[in-house]
Amino acid sequence: MSYPVLIDCDPGHDDALALLLAAGDSRLRLLGVTTVAGNQTVEKTTRNALRILALAGVTDVPVAAGSARPLVADLTVAEDIHGSSGLDGPDLDGPVVELAGVHAVELMRRLIVGSAEPVTLVATGPLTNVALLLRGHPEVVPRLRRVVFMGGSTDRGNTTPYGEFNIVTDPEAADIVLRSGLPTTMIGLNVTHQALATDEIIAEFRGMGTRLGVICAELMTFFASTYRQVFGFEHPPVHDPIAVAAVLEPSIVRTVAAPVAVELAGTHTRGATVVDLHHRTGRAPDADVAVGLDVDAFWRLLMSAVRRLG
Amino acid sequence: MSYPVLIDCDPGHDDALALLLAAGDSRLRLLGVTTVAGNQTVEKTTRNALRILALAGVTDVPVAAGSARPLVADLTVAEDIHGSSGLDGPDLDGPVVELAGVHAVELMRRLIVGSAEPVTLVATGPLTNVALLLRGHPEVVPRLRRVVFMGGSTDRGNTTPYGEFNIVTDPEAADIVLRSGLPTTMIGLNVTHQALATDEIIAEFRGMGTRLGVICAELMTFFASTYRQVFGFEHPPVHDPIAVAAVLEPSIVRTVAAPVAVELAGTHTRGATVVDLHHRTGRAPDADVAVGLDVDAFWRLLMSAVRRLG
Amino acid sequence: MSYPVLIDCDPGHDDALALLLAAGDSRLRLLGVTTVAGNQTVEKTTRNALRILALAGVTDVPVAAGSARPLVADLTVAEDIHGSSGLDGPDLDGPVVELAGVHAVELMRRLIVGSAEPVTLVATGPLTNVALLLRGHPEVVPRLRRVVFMGGSTDRGNTTPYGEFNIVTDPEAADIVLRSGLPTTMIGLNVTHQALATDEIIAEFRGMGTRLGVICAELMTFFASTYRQVFGFEHPPVHDPIAVAAVLEPSIVRTVAAPVAVELAGTHTRGATVVDLHHRTGRAPDADVAVGLDVDAFWRLLMSAVRRLG
Amino acid sequence: MSYPVLIDCDPGHDDALALLLAAGDSRLRLLGVTTVAGNQTVEKTTRNALRILALAGVTDVPVAAGSARPLVADLTVAEDIHGSSGLDGPDLDGPVVELAGVHAVELMRRLIVGSAEPVTLVATGPLTNVALLLRGHPEVVPRLRRVVFMGGSTDRGNTTPYGEFNIVTDPEAADIVLRSGLPTTMIGLNVTHQALATDEIIAEFRGMGTRLGVICAELMTFFASTYRQVFGFEHPPVHDPIAVAAVLEPSIVRTVAAPVAVELAGTHTRGATVVDLHHRTGRAPDADVAVGLDVDAFWRLLMSAVRRLG
Repeated sequence: MSYPVLIDCDPGHDDALALLLAAGDSRLRLLGVTTVAGNQTVEKTTRNALRILALAGVTDVPVAAGSARPLVADLTVAEDIHGSSGLDGPDLDGPVVELAGVHAVELMRRLIVGSAEPVTLVATGPLTNVALLLRGHPEVVPRLRRVVFMGGSTDRGNTTPYGEFNIVTDPEAADIVLRSGLPTTMIGLNVTHQALATDEIIAEFRGMGTRLGVICAELMTFFASTYRQVFGFEHPPVHDPIAVAAVLEPSIVRTVAAPVAVELAGTHTRGATVVDLHHRTGRAPDADVAVGLDVDAFWRLLMSAVRRLG
Repeated sequence: MSYPVLIDCDPGHDDALALLLAAGDSRLRLLGVTTVAGNQTVEKTTRNALRILALAGVTDVPVAAGSARPLVADLTVAEDIHGSSGLDGPDLDGPVVELAGVHAVELMRRLIVGSAEPVTLVATGPLTNVALLLRGHPEVVPRLRRVVFMGGSTDRGNTTPYGEFNIVTDPEAADIVLRSGLPTTMIGLNVTHQALATDEIIAEFRGMGTRLGVICAELMTFFASTYRQVFGFEHPPVHDPIAVAAVLEPSIVRTVAAPVAVELAGTHTRGATVVDLHHRTGRAPDADVAVGLDVDAFWRLLMSAVRRLG
Repeated sequence: MSYPVLIDCDPGHDDALALLLAAGDSRLRLLGVTTVAGNQTVEKTTRNALRILALAGVTDVPVAAGSARPLVADLTVAEDIHGSSGLDGPDLDGPVVELAGVHAVELMRRLIVGSAEPVTLVATGPLTNVALLLRGHPEVVPRLRRVVFMGGSTDRGNTTPYGEFNIVTDPEAADIVLRSGLPTTMIGLNVTHQALATDEIIAEFRGMGTRLGVICAELMTFFASTYRQVFGFEHPPVHDPIAVAAVLEPSIVRTVAAPVAVELAGTHTRGATVVDLHHRTGRAPDADVAVGLDVDAFWRLLMSAVRRLG
Repeated sequence: MSYPVLIDCDPGHDDALALLLAAGDSRLRLLGVTTVAGNQTVEKTTRNALRILALAGVTDVPVAAGSARPLVADLTVAEDIHGSSGLDGPDLDGPVVELAGVHAVELMRRLIVGSAEPVTLVATGPLTNVALLLRGHPEVVPRLRRVVFMGGSTDRGNTTPYGEFNIVTDPEAADIVLRSGLPTTMIGLNVTHQALATDEIIAEFRGMGTRLGVICAELMTFFASTYRQVFGFEHPPVHDPIAVAAVLEPSIVRTVAAPVAVELAGTHTRGATVVDLHHRTGRAPDADVAVGLDVDAFWRLLMSAVRRLG
């Protein structure tokens, strides 16, 4: 059995690993890949998605470019973290496949409507495309199994003290997704900051003896250098593939159902995901919020997938 | 020569007059009519649009239903003003034509892309559909001539002290439209409150000696009763047809180019259109804001159109 | 019979007229004058208050300097309107009396506690001192008859599209005063913009044949020049003395009891006074809000007082 | 040598321990104790302060009651945590000394002005009194050595997901204190949640063999029961005495200088202390923010002080 999955992403170093994990594990059936502005402009994130899929040998999955900007907020890309290409570090070949000639939202709609089984939507960038899908095509809602997104935090953020990059970039989109009534899983910084690309992890990539392994090592080496410079982190957190891992093996993350409000109005807190873990607000749960991560199982899963891609 | 126009609306008593004005003046070429939740649910506003078009004898214009709810805000309909049908008062026949089988936003997109000339979009309800169009299909932007919307105010509001109904209902959509870079005309309460359906106006409708005239009189009589009850107004303002009139005869409204910020964050002012008439903020203009109305010319235009429809 | 009154002010051209009105009408018993930062720094507004009182021949009223800055907001003075002295235009003599050696709030407290009758507090600047009095010395609350303040608006503002200078300068202070439970009268721009210092008004001052009349004419001439430059007004509105007039002859302003919320959180509307004239919010009234002004009676009152001062 | 210290508090179980620590360590010279509404009404917190001082045998320190409510926010007491008396649990004797006949803010002012050395102000409740002192009596600012307050958090809150009780109760007051330019130390939940009153701690209090030890044990037993019920904590955090400890032995807390913005505007985050640990905002530091605690040294200090009081 395999789950039909859509990935909406903004690669991005850790998005790249998310795509590789999805491509390399046969339990996922990757229906399509869509892109969004976030870590870089949508032109760059789209080109990066195509380059990573080429690297993974994936040529039969449709890819479409989506929103060039957030719904309401102005776009600020994360060039300080991901470089000017959005995927700085290794030398990557160009794309192999052509883009589907439709907007990301239209591709998602078609693939969801055309799927015999309910589709799981994994989002590793700002939620702009997903929000446009839900508001513009509400008929897809009952055909979605779940939205699993990397974003937010139960405690501190990275872009602002309480704001994580994907949610700060498009807070209104996140609010739309979280209050859509769909089953939602939030993979926030509170767990992704446990999945660090240590020297051992980078060595393991490099030691695979494949071009892909070397490229993963180079991606993580670049990522480590910017995280060190910007945040003073010893090792960079590998956020996005955890969202894919949580679909493949739900036991890898421990979740609790909790109210999650996106702060849309604060002067210093706009884009914070306000997670009511102690049920002080009296609101009903909005999402299954990841609060624990089986770090070893996560890395095993990711390494296996990368190895499998050869 | 005739202007190609799309009307996005939520009828609503004054939207009904806007549709009649558009249908009855040959200088407009009505490409399509789309509906949105606002004065009532989208099911009701759609049925009302179809009933008004039937009444006007318009059978060759495609109609599509759109957003059932605002982008981010929760929907609150104006049942206290427009009644439980959204068009209480007269006995109206049912629809004659079928809905186009697509979402309002998709219909708009097709009609804009298919038009040889740039299209003017007139919006008389919350701007949800228009915002989804601009964000989901940015390729239409250069093919739009202008967006003319009824909404907002340069001074006081009606739904809240500073908030007008259409903008308060979907503030984020209004922000998206106003900051889209498109030429935009804002027809706010500051001018629409000058176009009052006085007893003389109602008598003039009734005196036309046509079924349509009687129905217009009955619509305005109902509208007057709720405005009196809710706001203590002696006569109700006829907001929406002024947006159509401003396309037909731009000289009917006097406008100034001004910065218009939609307040998205206030505790008591969310949805206010903050119009900087004295250029105190130093921001560039966002819209041509109506600040004056030729009331007599407006009524002449509207009465002629209703007479012409017979 | 005479009302015991305290005036808290930030002169300011129109504050100057407010002080002259209070000094020249024997129906008010001026217990004390206190100053606050607003139109200019508190050093300048204090010096200006002393100079105006000297001009009026008032030497037996204690004066104290108060808050040098708003409670929470940063101070922005109105130098573009009142000039670098805060009272640019005429040549004024220096102060005659010494300042009371206590803070404005302490002087207010002593005078209120020491008064046999309840005291009316007239505030013509930001409400910082008044708020500190109410929060730091709640025992004075039952000894106050009413707070009458110039500030806010039921429609448009002057400092921002919906914000009036005194309230925008210290929104939290205004909120504290309006929600204090005290009887409060709000004299907003919606009425003060009716009291314009026309050429005839200025000529009347000048024609009094007194030094004071000439100085009033010069003050208004300067005021007219900045209002023309900043706002494009033909004649400047004389805001502050209307608050004193409303104490002297309450019939000069028509008021309605209404809920008044100060917007503390908006991005574009912070400091707006959100007056619910149509009772749409369901909140209880906070203030008697001036909605009408007997312009002729106001000028008669002011002219008489200035004449009486000689 | 001993530091002159003022304590402003709202006892409260952990405030009680803060007072005992201050009373029992001769390195502090306790100039005065003032009270504020917070954990309970100011009537109750005042009575509790007097009862704790009586218990500690302190009869020569002036005590004054202060603000009955926050500056702008409405008061919500923490009865669910501290019980209906604000100090539920043990049977406590009544007060021994009389209140100083002045308001807390006036007492603080006099003691600061009268002190030969600069005074350290320790605040363990909402910062209402301190803010009124700074705004109403700016002349004391240069005579203060530092404000050390328990409040806020660098990560999660307790009253709301990101808001700690003292700051959420009066966010404007906290903003005033943090932006006053005074040296400030913030002792937030991120460190106080490390000082847990475990069974061993409670046993150590009880094992002292003194009435005071038993009362401390009973206070902590009650506190443990409410923390378990409300938050599901195994052991309750003992927040307030850490602020006193940080004055006595600064090495007990590790601090970093950081920008701290109080969120005044958020829908879900009002009262959050937004601490920019990674210098992402480019703002200058506002406070020395505690980020580490020597838990053992803290308990040794507290236990010694309680033992010394006998």
